[in-house]
Amino acid sequence: MSESLLARRARLMGPNVPTFYETPVHIVRGEGVWLWDAGGRKYLDAYNNVPQVGHCHPKVVEAICRQAATLNTHTRYLHEAVLDYIERLTATLGHGLSQAIMVCTGSEANDIALRMAQATTGKRGIIATDNTYHGNTAAVSQLSTRRPPIGGYPPHVRFVPAPDSLRPVGGSAAEQPQAFARNVARAIAELEDSGIGFAGMILCPFFANEGFPALSPGFFAPTEAVIRRAGGIIIADEVQPGFGRLGTHFWGHDWLGLAPDVVTMGKPMANGHPVGAVVARPEVMAAFREAFGYFNTFGGNPVSAAAAIATLEVTREEGLQENARVVGAHARERLRALSHPLIGEVRGEGLFFGVEFVTDDRMTPASAFTARLVERMREAGVLLNRIGRHGNTLKIRPPLPFSRENADLLVDSLERALAQTPVPA
Amino acid sequence: MSESLLARRARLMGPNVPTFYETPVHIVRGEGVWLWDAGGRKYLDAYNNVPQVGHCHPKVVEAICRQAATLNTHTRYLHEAVLDYIERLTATLGHGLSQAIMVCTGSEANDIALRMAQATTGKRGIIATDNTYHGNTAAVSQLSTRRPPIGGYPPHVRFVPAPDSLRPVGGSAAEQPQAFARNVARAIAELEDSGIGFAGMILCPFFANEGFPALSPGFFAPTEAVIRRAGGIIIADEVQPGFGRLGTHFWGHDWLGLAPDVVTMGKPMANGHPVGAVVARPEVMAAFREAFGYFNTFGGNPVSAAAAIATLEVTREEGLQENARVVGAHARERLRALSHPLIGEVRGEGLFFGVEFVTDDRMTPASAFTARLVERMREAGVLLNRIGRHGNTLKIRPPLPFSRENADLLVDSLERALAQTPVPA
Repeated sequence: MSESLLARRARLMGPNVPTFYETPVHIVRGEGVWLWDAGGRKYLDAYNNVPQVGHCHPKVVEAICRQAATLNTHTRYLHEAVLDYIERLTATLGHGLSQAIMVCTGSEANDIALRMAQATTGKRGIIATDNTYHGNTAAVSQLSTRRPPIGGYPPHVRFVPAPDSLRPVGGSAAEQPQAFARNVARAIAELEDSGIGFAGMILCPFFANEGFPALSPGFFAPTEAVIRRAGGIIIADEVQPGFGRLGTHFWGHDWLGLAPDVVTMGKPMANGHPVGAVVARPEVMAAFREAFGYFNTFGGNPVSAAAAIATLEVTREEGLQENARVVGAHARERLRALSHPLIGEVRGEGLFFGVEFVTDDRMTPASAFTARLVERMREAGVLLNRIGRHGNTLKIRPPLPFSRENADLLVDSLERALAQTPVPA
Repeated sequence: MSESLLARRARLMGPNVPTFYETPVHIVRGEGVWLWDAGGRKYLDAYNNVPQVGHCHPKVVEAICRQAATLNTHTRYLHEAVLDYIERLTATLGHGLSQAIMVCTGSEANDIALRMAQATTGKRGIIATDNTYHGNTAAVSQLSTRRPPIGGYPPHVRFVPAPDSLRPVGGSAAEQPQAFARNVARAIAELEDSGIGFAGMILCPFFANEGFPALSPGFFAPTEAVIRRAGGIIIADEVQPGFGRLGTHFWGHDWLGLAPDVVTMGKPMANGHPVGAVVARPEVMAAFREAFGYFNTFGGNPVSAAAAIATLEVTREEGLQENARVVGAHARERLRALSHPLIGEVRGEGLFFGVEFVTDDRMTPASAFTARLVERMREAGVLLNRIGRHGNTLKIRPPLPFSRENADLLVDSLERALAQTPVPA
């Protein structure tokens, strides 16, 4: 079955279409934290953040159905739902982040955010880390070292070494904040010297694709000061850490202790309905809106707004941020109790966590081992993946209703998989 | 009510957020070709192509509800719905257009199409008409003269004068095909001479934003020959004319008599659910897919695929292409029977048509008159708009179930509105 689906995909979608796992999973049904394949096999979803409140949450499904049967049109007509949503969304944000543009994807959101930086500063230079991913549009793909852009990297994009848990920038965890900031300062100077000028920095405040390194409190403060002195804009890409996932904070930038000018959102916003957003301070929004007559046909339509409202409501009503905090802490406690020679670090926040595997004291990444472990977990019926520069960190980022029992099943399965996966000589 | 909604919009969305009409309409319900405002007033929708098969079509709503309650995940897992849809979609296309990337918006589709041209040719120069709009991403916004991009126009984009009904390029309708092609040839030469090189041309094959000029058969043939000789790619943006709207043809490029390498789609694809697509010949798809590891989280998800399948099925089952042909012809016949001193031309195809208003024999655009007429039609309960370089052409592009009776109501209302709108001295 899967093989013929793969052949159909190649015929209809072309080559090099990404899938997960050596033998991709053919999923046909979802409910809560569970997925079922075409053969009736049940999987624990320990990976997907898109189904924020759980696969096919009845309240979100009902909101979509009700609104789809009533009206679906665009923001050139007036409608209350998009305003109700922006009102509730911005109520969760501080730092003067009070206005939004609704779009359909995180990529569209970041594509706008870059132009907000340009419209606000009159300059174009953007800094990102050297192991990030911010989306798939032509402009945004130029920020991603994980997938090089067509046409190569342009001179207005500069990369700084990503923070790292086990191999800190500057040589030690204590040095890392200042060392990271010095690299940003150097990139700013290069952009200014080149005549391009510095517009801003974009970052995932949890450094998710970088392997979500453990960072000391105040890590970003020296960098923020450098950016502010240079007159740049800070864009926090909350596509992964946002909406309560980190447990202690609703937003990744508040967890990091950062006051962004622009926040971008996507994946979990509407539990899988294609919704993204850019939230900005009014002066940044005005600079963009006045420089460009932006309109997005599907962005903020009543059905998308209804799905996003329901997702936000369920997140609150079911206490999913607190659940992320409690269950995540429990999972990490159990993971830290595992004994295995390759475990380099157990880390993360709330329901975004993982284990980094290394082969020796010099922190040599156990990438192939981690890859085999991911496959073995899939065989055991638990879906997760790996991330970070070397692909040697498990990426565990489940739907937020993930329970203590789900966490126990995850860790028990991992314990068995670790025992079954050969350790490199 | 509308006033306070406008104030809320300004507070929550910022300045310069586009709306239709002097007093924007607050729509709360839709069904078929009808929309209702918050005061219970009913409007005939003669403008929106997004609700392709009619507002809130029960079959599309049911498909969305059923799939949203079953599974909504992404294409890194296998699923049949996205393949079923691409199979049915590409079956409607000739010219070897057999593979697709599913995205969420027409803007995302065009953003990819530009990179397909770059990946295929190794060059970057793009030609578009000087009165078009292809979307809102940073890359695509550079193609649109109707809304200048932030940062200005880059050197790799060249514009050629758009074809025109009443003011033909080259001075006459007979000269227009060759004159248009000569301008394209000149732009190609400029791109090649500058060292940028020519990658391709993007066009709406119906020249919708250009005011959908009446064109002689074979209009594009000389231009196509010029582009082929230069080794460029042709991108047909079918966001407006596609999916049977033109009546005689399912696709705008077949109506124009053009064999594109890439076709992009958006608005009407899934009746309002955020779905777009790029369809390409396999060698063009491979050039892109191998140059860039493209993945779109929401693109081609099972719910989006279900909505798109249902929309395509209803379009066929209800004979909406034939309806567009018959009702569109009837509407134009009735419009041509109207007597009014400012009517310059009645034109269009299927259910995409309009009237261009001019003040004199030199074809001076009656832009202000047309603007007032649009407002008067809104007051009369008929929603439409205006388009073209001078904004003096009515844009009538209703949902496809638009009936003969709907067309009569439209024309009767227009006749009254024409009688009530002062003619400029």
